[in-house]
Amino acid sequence: MTLIGERLAERQCEACREDSEPVVGVAREEMLAALSDWRVEMIDEVDQLVGDFSFANFVDAMAFANAVGELAENADHHPRLVIEWGSVSVYWWTHTIRSLHLNDFILAARVTALSRE
Amino acid sequence: MTLIGERLAERQCEACREDSEPVVGVAREEMLAALSDWRVEMIDEVDQLVGDFSFANFVDAMAFANAVGELAENADHHPRLVIEWGSVSVYWWTHTIRSLHLNDFILAARVTALSRE
Repeated sequence: MTLIGERLAERQCEACREDSEPVVGVAREEMLAALSDWRVEMIDEVDQLVGDFSFANFVDAMAFANAVGELAENADHHPRLVIEWGSVSVYWWTHTIRSLHLNDFILAARVTALSRE
Repeated sequence: MTLIGERLAERQCEACREDSEPVVGVAREEMLAALSDWRVEMIDEVDQLVGDFSFANFVDAMAFANAVGELAENADHHPRLVIEWGSVSVYWWTHTIRSLHLNDFILAARVTALSRE
């Protein structure tokens, strides 16, 4: 992970309101460039930050999903997790603004850090 | 769950080979009728048995996903699990035959039983 990515992981999430600003334009491009595991996908008309992680088996995939779940619960911001044999995909977005908030990038960076432990 | 559903849950999974028979026609309809939580959806050109389960929060959803994961690991047959805040969707299908095998219905019945514990 790059320095920007590492610093992102250390930032604190902030409470998100309906008038919170989405991350767009250059700021989004810079953060995405720092988070090589992640891409933006438009799903159900909402930009989502998506990361795919591979594992040797189902048990390892489940364990990673649980670790992401714990991280999400601690931040009170929850992703969609898609678990299959040997893989976990994580989808972050912010319901309140129907877009990507800084919190989504912070949590994506933390998931990447988790995947490299 | 109906009697057919309960009996399904108690059946043992069998090893699935490429020439194993998919569950189709009347047999499929009967089993589906016994499994009211489940529907068949064609996804990526493969019929999949899909069940949606609701929970009061993320932690409860994660706990259910883990219980389904344990059940899957014990049967050595693994679903796709989609976890969001307050919901878990479970997708069963059999890769080897790219269709629905009896094993999928057995495990769906077990997941339903689990959801009612």
